[in-house]
Parts: sequence; structure tokens; C-alpha cells
Amino acid sequence: MQRLNWGLIGGGEGSQIGFVHRAGAEIDRLFELRAGAFDVNPAKSVEFGNSLGLDPTRVQGTWRDLLLSEKDRPDRLDLVTVATPNATHFEISKAFLEAGFNVFCEKPLTTTLDEARRLEVLANERGLICAVNFGYSGYPMVRHMRSLVSQGVLGAIRLVKAEFAAGFLADSSFDDNPRVRWRFDPEQAGNSLVMADMGCHAMHLVTFVTGQKVRSLSADLATGVEGRGLEDDALVAFRTTEGAIGRLWVSGLATGRTHGLTLQIFGEQGGLSWEQEQPEQLNFTPMGKASRILERGMDGISKEAAAANRITVGHPEGMVLAFANLYRDIASEIRARCTRSRSADPVLFPDVSDGRHMVEVVCAAVESSRNAGAWQSLE
Amino acid sequence: MQRLNWGLIGGGEGSQIGFVHRAGAEIDRLFELRAGAFDVNPAKSVEFGNSLGLDPTRVQGTWRDLLLSEKDRPDRLDLVTVATPNATHFEISKAFLEAGFNVFCEKPLTTTLDEARRLEVLANERGLICAVNFGYSGYPMVRHMRSLVSQGVLGAIRLVKAEFAAGFLADSSFDDNPRVRWRFDPEQAGNSLVMADMGCHAMHLVTFVTGQKVRSLSADLATGVEGRGLEDDALVAFRTTEGAIGRLWVSGLATGRTHGLTLQIFGEQGGLSWEQEQPEQLNFTPMGKASRILERGMDGISKEAAAANRITVGHPEGMVLAFANLYRDIASEIRARCTRSRSADPVLFPDVSDGRHMVEVVCAAVESSRNAGAWQSLE
Amino acid sequence: MQRLNWGLIGGGEGSQIGFVHRAGAEIDRLFELRAGAFDVNPAKSVEFGNSLGLDPTRVQGTWRDLLLSEKDRPDRLDLVTVATPNATHFEISKAFLEAGFNVFCEKPLTTTLDEARRLEVLANERGLICAVNFGYSGYPMVRHMRSLVSQGVLGAIRLVKAEFAAGFLADSSFDDNPRVRWRFDPEQAGNSLVMADMGCHAMHLVTFVTGQKVRSLSADLATGVEGRGLEDDALVAFRTTEGAIGRLWVSGLATGRTHGLTLQIFGEQGGLSWEQEQPEQLNFTPMGKASRILERGMDGISKEAAAANRITVGHPEGMVLAFANLYRDIASEIRARCTRSRSADPVLFPDVSDGRHMVEVVCAAVESSRNAGAWQSLE
Amino acid sequence: MQRLNWGLIGGGEGSQIGFVHRAGAEIDRLFELRAGAFDVNPAKSVEFGNSLGLDPTRVQGTWRDLLLSEKDRPDRLDLVTVATPNATHFEISKAFLEAGFNVFCEKPLTTTLDEARRLEVLANERGLICAVNFGYSGYPMVRHMRSLVSQGVLGAIRLVKAEFAAGFLADSSFDDNPRVRWRFDPEQAGNSLVMADMGCHAMHLVTFVTGQKVRSLSADLATGVEGRGLEDDALVAFRTTEGAIGRLWVSGLATGRTHGLTLQIFGEQGGLSWEQEQPEQLNFTPMGKASRILERGMDGISKEAAAANRITVGHPEGMVLAFANLYRDIASEIRARCTRSRSADPVLFPDVSDGRHMVEVVCAAVESSRNAGAWQSLE
Repeated sequence: MQRLNWGLIGGGEGSQIGFVHRAGAEIDRLFELRAGAFDVNPAKSVEFGNSLGLDPTRVQGTWRDLLLSEKDRPDRLDLVTVATPNATHFEISKAFLEAGFNVFCEKPLTTTLDEARRLEVLANERGLICAVNFGYSGYPMVRHMRSLVSQGVLGAIRLVKAEFAAGFLADSSFDDNPRVRWRFDPEQAGNSLVMADMGCHAMHLVTFVTGQKVRSLSADLATGVEGRGLEDDALVAFRTTEGAIGRLWVSGLATGRTHGLTLQIFGEQGGLSWEQEQPEQLNFTPMGKASRILERGMDGISKEAAAANRITVGHPEGMVLAFANLYRDIASEIRARCTRSRSADPVLFPDVSDGRHMVEVVCAAVESSRNAGAWQSLE
Repeated sequence: MQRLNWGLIGGGEGSQIGFVHRAGAEIDRLFELRAGAFDVNPAKSVEFGNSLGLDPTRVQGTWRDLLLSEKDRPDRLDLVTVATPNATHFEISKAFLEAGFNVFCEKPLTTTLDEARRLEVLANERGLICAVNFGYSGYPMVRHMRSLVSQGVLGAIRLVKAEFAAGFLADSSFDDNPRVRWRFDPEQAGNSLVMADMGCHAMHLVTFVTGQKVRSLSADLATGVEGRGLEDDALVAFRTTEGAIGRLWVSGLATGRTHGLTLQIFGEQGGLSWEQEQPEQLNFTPMGKASRILERGMDGISKEAAAANRITVGHPEGMVLAFANLYRDIASEIRARCTRSRSADPVLFPDVSDGRHMVEVVCAAVESSRNAGAWQSLE
Repeated sequence: MQRLNWGLIGGGEGSQIGFVHRAGAEIDRLFELRAGAFDVNPAKSVEFGNSLGLDPTRVQGTWRDLLLSEKDRPDRLDLVTVATPNATHFEISKAFLEAGFNVFCEKPLTTTLDEARRLEVLANERGLICAVNFGYSGYPMVRHMRSLVSQGVLGAIRLVKAEFAAGFLADSSFDDNPRVRWRFDPEQAGNSLVMADMGCHAMHLVTFVTGQKVRSLSADLATGVEGRGLEDDALVAFRTTEGAIGRLWVSGLATGRTHGLTLQIFGEQGGLSWEQEQPEQLNFTPMGKASRILERGMDGISKEAAAANRITVGHPEGMVLAFANLYRDIASEIRARCTRSRSADPVLFPDVSDGRHMVEVVCAAVESSRNAGAWQSLE
Repeated sequence: MQRLNWGLIGGGEGSQIGFVHRAGAEIDRLFELRAGAFDVNPAKSVEFGNSLGLDPTRVQGTWRDLLLSEKDRPDRLDLVTVATPNATHFEISKAFLEAGFNVFCEKPLTTTLDEARRLEVLANERGLICAVNFGYSGYPMVRHMRSLVSQGVLGAIRLVKAEFAAGFLADSSFDDNPRVRWRFDPEQAGNSLVMADMGCHAMHLVTFVTGQKVRSLSADLATGVEGRGLEDDALVAFRTTEGAIGRLWVSGLATGRTHGLTLQIFGEQGGLSWEQEQPEQLNFTPMGKASRILERGMDGISKEAAAANRITVGHPEGMVLAFANLYRDIASEIRARCTRSRSADPVLFPDVSDGRHMVEVVCAAVESSRNAGAWQSLE
């Protein structure tokens, strides 16, 4: 099977997320990196592209040049990944969608809700993919949670608890450093720090696993370090579209928590609990019974989890393979659209409506917090 | 040293908390059970008291008879523990305080704020102890947390996160059982279920460990099982008197969590994390350094933790010894007051003002939730 | 029900094991401390006994005086606990058994196999209890393991793995201290250090849980710190009487392991795993299924575990209550023998034949190691 | 930088290890898969190679054809990975080494010690790399353990404890299946099952981390399931070349342990503990201090661990990146040999002498066990 042509914007020298995208896209030989603009500095962009051994005619200094050079090629890109600073996501994604490219955009999709809605309309009108990288949804055991919930193993969902709390903003001694300071400045960084950066990941997992959206919320966005213009900690009470109770805590001040993304789902018939730092295990407690430790790769796992599983149980697969699962889903969907058929495999990548919904959640949380916790309804 | 005379109201046949009180009070030979009224059924009360081998003249069928028979004895009780249903705490504690007895009351101190304030005034006026059983504050490593915070090891506290979430209310098949149904009925159970039952424990730990009170809060009290008149899940955003950010989650719907009480404290210089189900360990992360697992009984532990420590490190001490630490503190304070001196040991039991503050917190949470999350100030 | 009369030899001022014995014996009100000789120093012994508020005529300076004063009393002791240095166990236990007292001896029962056999014959001839304090067998979840195995839940047992490895002998800077040095001196301490001190605990759990004895073994007793005359680390391969494969590791050099006692049992149909530092949980994996976390106090626990359970699930019970379970068993047995009936409750305390078998195991391990690992058969 | 030419023998359709090799070799763009013989069935081999999009002239049906077609090409392979059944390792590796190719052989290097020695001589005489895939040595925190030990952070090493115990051989219902039965048959599988398959991994980690070899050992190889001709459980006592005490347990019967590889190192100044199922963390306890949880990617990590680290701390890297670290080391060494220089980076892949030493260990364990545990010296 011919590999699909893939391009990357951003993710150049020194970028860890760039490495994970390249590894995740190519590891299954479904995509091959053909073109890119890797750095905001055009010279560095070219240098990096050449270091990867790409065809020099497809390495560009800017995303605009990439667009120009690719749009009329017969072997043009099947997918463009946008891994640039948040404020540029809208403009770049819009331009590539308008030129007919499928896009895989880093989260958050945009920094305003209006922009997100425009991208959603655009992608839908053109019949193009505009995936959004909520990468944790690629873990096999997250997909198994989703499958168990959709099979009704928990009964109706009553309660969802999500956390994404770590300590990466706890050291205030960097706050005067211009390379860090902008993050806390609403003029440069937008209306939210940890909700936009971390909260949307946790909340996407909630919607991914339950199959429900957020209907309303009340939020407290707080700043624990003096002088910061945006929140470094947030607490959100919410309700889902089917009425489940929701609780979310997000923090950058939680020294001692290395990553700190966890998800717990409680229904009429049992509960589930998962932690990103041990992504291979899922704790499942049927009502009134002992808790069970479900393992990635164990016998009897759901087909969604089995499809996302590569290595023998007991050997950690890690984050790269979670990204690879999103790329595999996108490849399936690209091929299915080409042949006007449906993919035989589960296709579970977060799409443009997920991306837009998460922008809505962040905006509603900001609005609620400004109104002293008043409940906000989402569309 | 002569053992102090101790009496117990409630805690009779079949009561687990009664066993823990008796074991905790007597294990250090500081108190000796001399008298009591153990059951709402007078005949059962007498039967139980006799089964304990007590002097039959000091075993009574009701707390009123106990009060009458004890108040004029020369060897009258030095302390009375009140382990009866919540709605009776006020009346019994008031009566014994008025008669000059020291009281150790189960939590919550009362079911209304007005009652709590009256007990506080009464105890203070009479110079009597009115301790409240927030028993988790007896664990050595909780006391070590408190000591580390007060020594400034974390710097100023920025953020506090407490949870008390378990699954004991998840099975709704008992809701029609009259022995359970009253818990969800505001007329019988008061204004709150999980906040009053569990939330006050978690919040007391917050105040105990930080040395700060709750200044304001916004709450979402929710019911996940149809037909219940009181909340079975709650989320509370709060601020402490010194401005720390607070987050509290309380639930009875969290199937798979056996007990679920945890406390995390984050300051300018590091973080602490503790879980009641593994009470012997405390996780401490100095800013920018590796996390350390502190063990009860290890070298270099604080004097507060060392004073609460009995068995060699590595052998779990458990809940009984946590209760014993409160009784030991109360014994020290009784003796100190008798001799108008100060106790040489740390005296850390929760007192009537702690009990009153927790009633305030519960009432404010109920009020906030009724007002769609509006922030409430506490005194 | 009348409390039984209990006496204690050793366990005085500063003794942690003495505290655990007193607390464990009295917490259920089945025994009451009436008499004792608590310290090798007669004056201190008397002082300590008086501090406990005992009848001064029953507090003695030496165990010989205790024996003399108790043996003809009408209210003589129903049980004597021997918590003295190992080398004195034989002489004291023998004297009290000969005088018709039930004995509860700290482990190891004796320091030579001949002595152990003599105590076994003596206790059996006299129809007296000579229990041995392998205290970890009092934990409810250890008893649940035993019950699951005896019910055949694992099928035939194929493999047993026990560890007792901690770091308490790792700091060699104390080796010149005379108060420590004797432990490493065969002339003073007997033929074994960690096998006799720790290995016998782990091996007793093996026999307790499987219901099988040790049939043969090959051992490597090693010394990791120069200058020590006895082993501070041991590895033992063994076979049980029904042919299961056995593996035991014991160490005092394992810095970072706080207590380090663990037991794993593997059979034809599944496996069990338990750790003393989290004694409330038991991991059970049925063949080909997910692992389950069994909790003390959960629904459906075995009657042996339920009988040993006191506090609501989720609140750690700890070591004192494990000891209390042995004392409760012994009380049941004393009463059953008085009435020539059988105890209605499970009676699971380690008896003199368990104590003798563990001395055999230690002696065989020493012999094997001296013979370069040659396999030794036990009787 | 030009990618090196890489070939793979074995690891075709359905092979998990084949996927991990391909992903690990290519993820850093240091190697590119150019040629191979992927299956014992020549037609399937060709089909698989074509599915990967390789140059059809470099896809062969057998390893012999691969050798013939590659040996005279100007762009011949820089490295051949041998991922075939154990019994074929010797013949294939020998043939490729004799033709001047660098080889990366799956473990065990060979099934007899004589063969291993011959490969060692051959590789050394030719100046070729003959790496052996003890893949766990690629984990960053294993490399950090090695660095801490070599820096002397633990002082002299006293004791090493390794385990590799899982349950994959516990279900005996497959024993009659011919596809499984050969594993237990000495005629087909060689002299050892779990020691050769798992024990060599654990023992390699011991030697890798301590920098010491095995000097002597005493082993008990046992069979827990009737009818098996080779051991499914093993216990080994050993001594290292510098006199440290060693303990190794290996099992296929340990139901409930998913993977079960752990390593603990204890020295004069502290201890280290690592588990393959949570490879990102390393527990370090300095003597007399609290245990610390070291995280991959944390500040202050050793240069060996930092060089093996790719993704932000908190996001699991997993097994593929551990393999990638071995491939990176091999690439560095190939380039260094080409330029007759030394690699600037740490080069830590297991080489032919490691592979030969592990064959020695397995053979000595078999011999010891046949002689009832008699100690065997290694060269």
C-alpha cells in the first residue's frame, strides 16, 4: 500500500512534540514525511528539513511558501500537521483547508470561539479532515474505557472526575524571563493559561470516553503566584448533555505531580479509573465487587483497544504509539474518503467539532469565573 | 499515674466506631471506661455495659440517667464521649458541659450553626474541653505535614487540594429501605449529606495542616441518584484566611475508591501529598527536586509526629492508634488544666472552635449551592 | 464473660513489642493484665508494673519470682506471654509449662532444635497451649489467603515465593557498638541472624497459608558486611510436603525497603500476592483473568477473615489488631479446653509444632549453607 | 547525515519483536531499512518485504540469498539484525560476520557456550560489531542506575536482587499443542527454558548496571507443571567478580505478574530499585534518608540517561524508544569505527562478550541444578 504524503509545519530543531509527530506519523509506514516548514526562522526551517533528508524542493522557509509550492503538485500532501504556536493555528489551518488540504492541528484548535466555528464550517463544507491533537485519546486503554462505557458496562454515567494537575508553573523565579512571561500575559497568550493548555485535554477525554458533550459549567480560575495575568489553577463544576455530574481540576502549581492527568468515570453499575503516567492499566470496579486491573493487550479486550495495541502486554508502549494511533485513524479516514467508503477499522481521532467544543469549554470557563462562578450554558 | 475516668454515650453492640473509641481511649492506659449509656434502647444499653464488666451502678439506660448518676459522684467522669446520631449531639453535649463535664463529641458537632456557636460559648465560658472527633488528625504523618507547613518548609501555601470520595452511596437499590432512606431526607438528616458526613473531615484536615481557616467558598452540591433529597456529590472552590486557593471534592458515588480521603498541599517551595489508606507514608517534593517518601517513625521526623508514633516503622499502626493520639492529647490537656499548667506534649486535638468552623463550612456550601455557586463569606 | 488472667514476661519500659502485646491482649477485653516481670533489672521491672496500675503483689522482679508467686494462687494466670531475649525462651517457657501454665512465646521458640522438640513434647503431654508469636498470621487478609487456598480457589499449589528483606542491618557504622555487635556473634546470638529473626516469619506464613510444611531445602547464607560472624542475607530454595516449589529471600541489607515482608502463592488456577506494608489488600488473579484487589472487610470475604475484621473497610487496622486476633484465638482455645468443647470460632494461632518446625527450617538452612548448598531433608 | 543501511532477518508478518526492531531502528532516522529476509517461508518473506515498500531487488526469500545478494553491493548493509528462532542465531550471525557485516542478534546469542565463544572470537578478529539485544538496557533509568553505581553513589555494591517472573507458562492446557510443546522439549529447545529466555535478561541488567560479571553460582531449576522437560521456574544464588552477593528468581508460573522484571541494587551507601512495567521511575534511597523517586527527564539526571531521553518527563516513552537507544548506540559505534575515532556519545549497547557471558550463566545454572545446587565457577 502506497504511503500517504505528509507535511509538517513547526516541530523543528529542539521541539519534542515535533519528534513525537514525526515518529507517530511514520512508525506504521502509513505516512511519509515529504515536505514542511519547520521553524519560524526560514533559514533554520530549511536547514532542519534538509537534515531530515527531504527532497529540497519541498522544504520551505515559511508555511505560506509551503502552501504555494504544494498546492499544485500532482503528488501533493495528503495531510498537513500544524504544530505552531497557538495564535497561528487558525490562520494556517484555514489557508490549508481552503486550498483543499486535510489538516491535523495541535490543540487548542484556535484561541477564539468564532475562529473555531469558522474552521468547523470550512472543513465540513469542503469535506476535509480537520483533526485536532488531543493525543491522549490514542492510548489503547482510554479507548477501552470508551468502549466499556458505550457497551453500557457502567450503566448510565452519573459522575465524571478529571484532573490535569502538575507543577510546571510552580517555580516563579522564571516569571521575569521574557521567554516565559508572555504565557501569563493575556495580550499575548489569549484568555486562559491552564484551562486552554491542560484543561482542554482533560475535558476532551471526558467527552471522548463518555460520548457526551459539556452542557453547562461553573468555574473558578485562580492565580496562585502574584503578578500573573492568567490563571495557573482552575476548578470547574459541570454537567454533561445527558445530565452527568462533572468535576475538573487543572493546575500548574502542583509540585510533586509529574504529569497528573487522570480520569475517573462512575456509573450506575460501576466505576473506571485511569492515569496517564501508567497508561497501560485501567482500574475497573463493578458495583459491589472487587476492583480489577485491566491490562493493555490482555485477553478479551475491546476491538477498539485491540486495534490500538501493538506490543506484548507488560512492555510499555508509551506516548509515541498513542500518537501513532491517531495518525492511523486519520490515514484510514483519508483512504475511506478517497474511495467513498467507510473505514473498516474504528476511526476515533478528535475532529474539528471536538476542537471547537473544547474552545467553547475554555471560553465558558473564563466567562463563568469572571462572573463569580455563575453557571454558563454551552450551545 | 492514676487513669482518668471516662464515659461513653452510644457506641454499643454492633457499633464499629464504639469499638474504636474504647480501644483508642484505653490503649495507653490514660483513660479507663467507668460508665456509660450505650444504646438508644435502655435494656440493650445496660446489657452492653454489663458485658464490658463495668460497675453496674454506673451503667445507665439513657444519657439523662447517666448525667444524673454521675454529676454528684466524687469519682465522676473526667471525660464523656458522645457517639450518638448527629441530631442529638447538641442536646447531649450541652447538658454535660452545663454540668461541668469535659466532652469529646463525634463530628459533626451540631446540625445547625447556631447550636455550634452556643456550644462554643458554653465550653469557653466554663473552661471545659469540648473536643470534636476529626479523627484523621491523629495520624502521625498528618501531624508531620502540619509541622512541615508550620516550619515553613513549603514556604507560603498557595494551593490546597482535598478529596473524600468513596462509593458507599453508589448502590441505589437500598434507597427504598427505611433504614437508609432517612439519610437522603432533609427533614430527618439535616441540610447536607456528604458535605456534613465526609466534607467536614477533609476540610478539617485542610485547616489542621495549614493552620488557616476557610474564608469564602463557592459550592456545587449535586445528586447523582434520582429521588435523593440531599447531595451525594459536592465540589467546592474556596479561599483560606491567608489567601490560599482551595479545592475540595466529596462524593459517595465513586465506586472503586475504598475510602478516598486524600490531602495535597502546595506552597512556594514544594508540595506534600497524603492518603488515608496508606497513612504511614507522606510524599514530599521540594521545588525542583525528586519526590521523597517520608515514613512514620523514620529518623528526623518532627516532634509532633514522633509523639504520635508507637510501633517500629514498617508495621502499620492503623486507625485505632490515630484515635488514641486524640485521647492522649485530651488527657494531657485535662491534666494540664487541673494543675493550671501547660501540657509538655503537643496538644493537637480538634476543639470546639474547629467543630463550629466545620459546621459553618457545611452551611456556607449549602447556601452557595442553592445560589447557583455564588461565593459565600465565612466570618 | 469474665476476662482471662494474663501475665507478661519482658516487654517493659521502652519495648515496642511489649506495647503491642499489651494492646493486642486487652483490646477485646478477653484478657486482662494481672501480673508480670517486665525487665531483666528487677527494680525496673517492679517500677514498670506499678506504673501500669497492677496489684503490687503480682508484680515481680524476675520470672522465677513470678512463677513462684503465681503457681499456687486460686486466680492464677490463664496465659503467660514470654517476650524476653531469644536465648531465654526455652528455660522460661519450660518452667511455666511444667507448672501448668499456658504460654505464648515470642519467636523463635528456641535457639536449638532439641529444645524446641522438648517444649513440643512437654506442651502436648500436659495438654497446654504453647503458642508462638508469628504475629503476621493475625492479619485478616493473610487468613483470607489461607482460606482461598484451602477452598481450592488456586487449585494445587505449584510455587510459593516469600520475601522478608529490609535495610535495618545496612548501616555498618554501628557494628562496633557492643549493644549491636553481639547480634553478629554466633557465641551470643546462636547459629543464625536473619534466617532466625526474619526468615522464620516469612516461612511461617508460607506454611500457614498453604497448610503445607517444608520438606527439603538448599540455602545460601551470606554476609555482605565484612567482620560479621552471622549472615545478613539469605536465599533458600525449598520444596513443600506436597511438592510445591519454594523460594525465599531474606535480607537486612536492602536499603530502601522499609519492612519488606511479602508473600506470593501460585497454583494451577491462579495467583495471590500480599505485602505486610499494605496488609488490608490482597491481590488475586484467576488464571487468564484480570487481577482483583480484595479488600479487608469487603462483601463476600471468607469467615476466617471476617472473624478477624473489626473496623469498616478503608480504615487501616494495623499491627495491633493482628496481634489481637492471635490473642482472641488463644482465648477461644483456653475456654474450649476448660469446657472440653471445641471453639466455635476459627482458631488459627501458631502453636508449638509451628514453632518447632520453624526452628527446624532455620537449622536446616544453616546446615545446607555450610555444605555449599547441599539439599537438606526435614523430618 | 546519511542514514545507515539496515537489514532485518526474521520479524515478518505477525511478529511483535519485528515491529519493535523496525520502529526502534528508524525512529531516529539513523538507519533505514533497505533489505531483508523476513520469514522462514520464502514466499511470505518476499510478500512482507514488498509490503514495506523496499527495493524488490533487496527483498529475499532466505537469509542465505540475502547474504549472497548483499555482500558485493557497493551500498551494502551497514547492519543486519537477526530476529530468528534461537537455534539459528549462531549460523546466521557467523555467516554475516564472516562476510564482514555488523550484526545485531536477538538474545540468546547462541544455544551452546562453544558457539558463543566462536562468535566472540570471530567478531573481535574482524573488528565487527556483534551486538546482542538485551533491550531493557536501553531504558534511560536503567542507564541512570548504571551511572549512579559507577559514580559510587551507593559505595561498594554488597547485594544485587533481580527478578523476572511472570505467568505466561502457567496455563498448562496448551502443553499438548505442538506449537507450544517444543518449548518444553530439550531436544528442540536446548538446555533451558526460563533461564535462557528470561533469566539472561535479568542477569544482563545485573552486569550492565553494576559493571561486574558473574563469578560463581548455585541454581535450582524446577518444573512446576508435570510433563515438562525443561524448567519453568528457577532460583539462583550467585557472586559477582567483585564479591557482591546475588539473588535471582525467574519464573513463568507467576500468575498475576504481567511482566515482572525488576532490579534492586544495594550498596554501602544506599539502594536502588527499578521495575520494567514502570520504567520511567527509579527509586533511590540514600542510607538513613527518605527514598526518592527519580524521574526520567528530571533536572540533574546523568548524561547517560539524558542522552537516552526524548520526550518531556511525565509522558511514558516505552519499549520502542528503549530499542531505539540501542540502535543509536550501534550507529554511533559504526560511524566511529568508520572514522577510526571514538564516539562522542555514550555507547552502551550489549556486545558479543555480554552475549557470551549470558550463555555461560545459563549453562552454569543448568549444570549446578543437575548437581543438586553445587556451586559452579564461571571463567
